[in-house]
Amino acid sequence: MKRLALLGSTGSIGEQTLAVALEFPERFRVTALAAGRNVARLAEQVRELRPERVAVADAEAARALRERLGRETPELGVGPAGLVAVAVHPADLVVAGLVGAIGLAPTLAALRAGRDVALANKEVMVMAGALVQREVRRRGVSLLPVDSEHSAIFQALAGSRPEHVARLVLTASGGPFRSWPAEKIARATVAEALAHPNWSMGPKITVDSATLANKALEVIEARWLFDVAPERVSVVVHPQSIVHSLVELVDGSVLAQLGVPDMRVPIACALAWPDRLPLSGPRLDLTAVGRLDFEPPDEKRFPCLGLAWRALAGAEAGPAVLNAANEEAVAAFLAGRIPFPGIAAVNERVLDDYLTLHAGETIAELEEVLAADAWARSHAREALAEGVL
Amino acid sequence: MKRLALLGSTGSIGEQTLAVALEFPERFRVTALAAGRNVARLAEQVRELRPERVAVADAEAARALRERLGRETPELGVGPAGLVAVAVHPADLVVAGLVGAIGLAPTLAALRAGRDVALANKEVMVMAGALVQREVRRRGVSLLPVDSEHSAIFQALAGSRPEHVARLVLTASGGPFRSWPAEKIARATVAEALAHPNWSMGPKITVDSATLANKALEVIEARWLFDVAPERVSVVVHPQSIVHSLVELVDGSVLAQLGVPDMRVPIACALAWPDRLPLSGPRLDLTAVGRLDFEPPDEKRFPCLGLAWRALAGAEAGPAVLNAANEEAVAAFLAGRIPFPGIAAVNERVLDDYLTLHAGETIAELEEVLAADAWARSHAREALAEGVL
Repeated sequence: MKRLALLGSTGSIGEQTLAVALEFPERFRVTALAAGRNVARLAEQVRELRPERVAVADAEAARALRERLGRETPELGVGPAGLVAVAVHPADLVVAGLVGAIGLAPTLAALRAGRDVALANKEVMVMAGALVQREVRRRGVSLLPVDSEHSAIFQALAGSRPEHVARLVLTASGGPFRSWPAEKIARATVAEALAHPNWSMGPKITVDSATLANKALEVIEARWLFDVAPERVSVVVHPQSIVHSLVELVDGSVLAQLGVPDMRVPIACALAWPDRLPLSGPRLDLTAVGRLDFEPPDEKRFPCLGLAWRALAGAEAGPAVLNAANEEAVAAFLAGRIPFPGIAAVNERVLDDYLTLHAGETIAELEEVLAADAWARSHAREALAEGVL
Repeated sequence: MKRLALLGSTGSIGEQTLAVALEFPERFRVTALAAGRNVARLAEQVRELRPERVAVADAEAARALRERLGRETPELGVGPAGLVAVAVHPADLVVAGLVGAIGLAPTLAALRAGRDVALANKEVMVMAGALVQREVRRRGVSLLPVDSEHSAIFQALAGSRPEHVARLVLTASGGPFRSWPAEKIARATVAEALAHPNWSMGPKITVDSATLANKALEVIEARWLFDVAPERVSVVVHPQSIVHSLVELVDGSVLAQLGVPDMRVPIACALAWPDRLPLSGPRLDLTAVGRLDFEPPDEKRFPCLGLAWRALAGAEAGPAVLNAANEEAVAAFLAGRIPFPGIAAVNERVLDDYLTLHAGETIAELEEVLAADAWARSHAREALAEGVL
């Protein structure tokens, strides 16, 4: 029986994690759940799973949860401290399913408490990859990727030694604007950016798929998760999202993981590793798919992608700055304040301004990362307010 | 320094094995070589590699080799005994690169002498898979596949446990007649059958690729190499020969090995395993390939394929009978004695006649396999002589 603590239980990753766990009740028990403000759904989860501890975003959400659950309310925490309490609650595996910078502190707390972590919250590695890997090594814990691309690489690498790896190749669907000319992309609406061809995800990550900023973040994540030099991480556009990523070895052999686009598969892989679950669901039939296409990414139409390597090469907090700028820019785009190409423009300007000031600087502590994140957000807001884009 | 003994040194697998070994002279030393009648090439190999022992097909070839090499001639054996002497000569790995039934006895001898074996000689597993696996287990040696499909499965499986495997999926190029209508296939010439789209191989195996008999033999080989039930082995046609094969796991995850069609890669993998060699040569560029296609095999136009499962289900010597019948039928086709569809007709008739007599029988000893092989050859020749096809 593996005990699970789940950060982000009412989000897309959280719900699918619970779906997998509930398919195998003899293998998994959920001991702690952290959600944000979706109290109605969290209350249902508590009634079904009977966790020992929960967390919500703030006092108002806490009050609402107590109202619904009454004496059935488990130990309850709020805000950042509540998240950390869930992250360090007795468990065998912490599923880090939050979105954004908010997941960084509780994930680090889980690792420091000696917990294995299944990581879907890519900003953790983007912002603080070096710090996270330092904790993983120091504590001897496992960090299991949940992102479909990184899970693919993790699975493909399972029989290989690090010195055998020549290159990691992340696949990218190309997003909804893959075949659009630049002039049409320049006029793309929010609704068009939210129409992802293959995966059903939240709005922030769906917009990131349209700009390829998501792939830039994944390049950074891969660099840290698998401890490979940035120039050994590359991206290929594969519109069908069947090949989830590939690993090229030194002898020219290429290992890949494939499957129907179903996040339950990488989640199940992380939950059970090194075991495998006999998961229900559709199986890949290559003859039904018929055809897999591959093309190089177009960094002219999708300038966010190349910023990954620029951020990695520029300064150790460069990726954190890029990520923070991108969160602000996407929020502005979703609010209708900037056009679609404005996202890349904000990202590039904030990153370049940061690197002008901090080129080559390293980071030793979480506080420095958070300071860079805060600087980037404020700088991005200024740029947005000035309307100089 | 890994010592290699090589069965079939002047054939396609043998030459490519030596090319890999010579690229890494600090890692490999060739201690024994067995060839057939290509004495001129064998003499060159002896001068370059200085093996301690060699073998040739017969006394005439031995005389010719001594004439060329004079006092440089290593210890020299002839015929089946010469092959066995090479197979058990002191070495760390025996590369079984012969073609056909002739490789069975020396490969078994190598395993019995405690040698790890890199196996390209698929007939060894087709004819005597159960016996071979018994020896492998008894001696605790490694059997490393060299066939590109089986190497792909071996590599894809490296991080997995046997109980996690749901299905093996062998890819097939489909051969030169993949898109031909049945009427055109019925009139296919020898030259047309020898024009393989992706791989450069010997004539027997190239014809087998055109009939899909090669894939039938590989299904049988996979069943025994990876010890999976025949119904868990399937075939998908993939004309580009980039995905070399796939493994479906119980959770729906699919692992695959890809690469440019270059036999040096699976050979290098087997020679170095569990290490990897930094092999020279072209790398897979999926964006240059652009597109990978998959379609179901058409057992109506290619009836040889389905015979694999019929042979496996029918009797333990069924695969040996199918293989022997096929060797005779292909020889008759190459000699212009039967039309292309005659190959499948001979195979089907000989297999069905055998299974009528021996349904459900098991085999305990090599002699029984050889007797079934001899029966099938003689029965196939009778059928060919009768011209009843």
